[in-house]
Amino acid sequence: MGQSLPDDPALYFSTHVFVCCNRREPGHERGSCAEKGADAIRDYMKAQVKLRKIRGVRINQAGCLDRCELGPCAVIYPEGVWYRLDSKEAVDTVLEKHVAQGGRVPELMLPAR
Amino acid sequence: MGQSLPDDPALYFSTHVFVCCNRREPGHERGSCAEKGADAIRDYMKAQVKLRKIRGVRINQAGCLDRCELGPCAVIYPEGVWYRLDSKEAVDTVLEKHVAQGGRVPELMLPAR
Repeated sequence: MGQSLPDDPALYFSTHVFVCCNRREPGHERGSCAEKGADAIRDYMKAQVKLRKIRGVRINQAGCLDRCELGPCAVIYPEGVWYRLDSKEAVDTVLEKHVAQGGRVPELMLPAR
Repeated sequence: MGQSLPDDPALYFSTHVFVCCNRREPGHERGSCAEKGADAIRDYMKAQVKLRKIRGVRINQAGCLDRCELGPCAVIYPEGVWYRLDSKEAVDTVLEKHVAQGGRVPELMLPAR
């Protein structure tokens, strides 16, 4: 499962970011990313990608990514790297270091399972 | 951009499917996946993964994946392969051939850019 094959088409988006925007009812024990400001994070990230003219990148909202306790969270494919994006500064840093430069931001990354 | 690095954590989901569930107003020239039944497709796919006990797979809804004319569409990561999922039969086939067996279903795949 989850393996590229030699004949697969080229990636449609070279970087595809999914920002969890799931909202649970207030007081739910797991919390939710929307409750922690995910909608604004998604909007900011989309606007910044446009502003910085980073090509080939798509920012999408997603339903519950099931890492609620660590949110607001996002996952970047095809590399499958997860981040906690809880501020505009965090978004700026991930866009610059990871998305534009292909590096990583270890202090914002979510741990392995 | 979009490259795995040797020190990246293991994938959190070995197969991560995003089903576009974007809804546009009726009559929009691009149409939308929700208008073509995407919500029911997502629900069916989630239920089937559970029923078939396929492990390590997450089915999520996503905002507009920007391939509206070809929808209802979904993308499977980390391999970044896109499908048109317009029926329960299409979902069954993709789950069996691609997700469970690691193959491809060329007749349902979206073309490269």
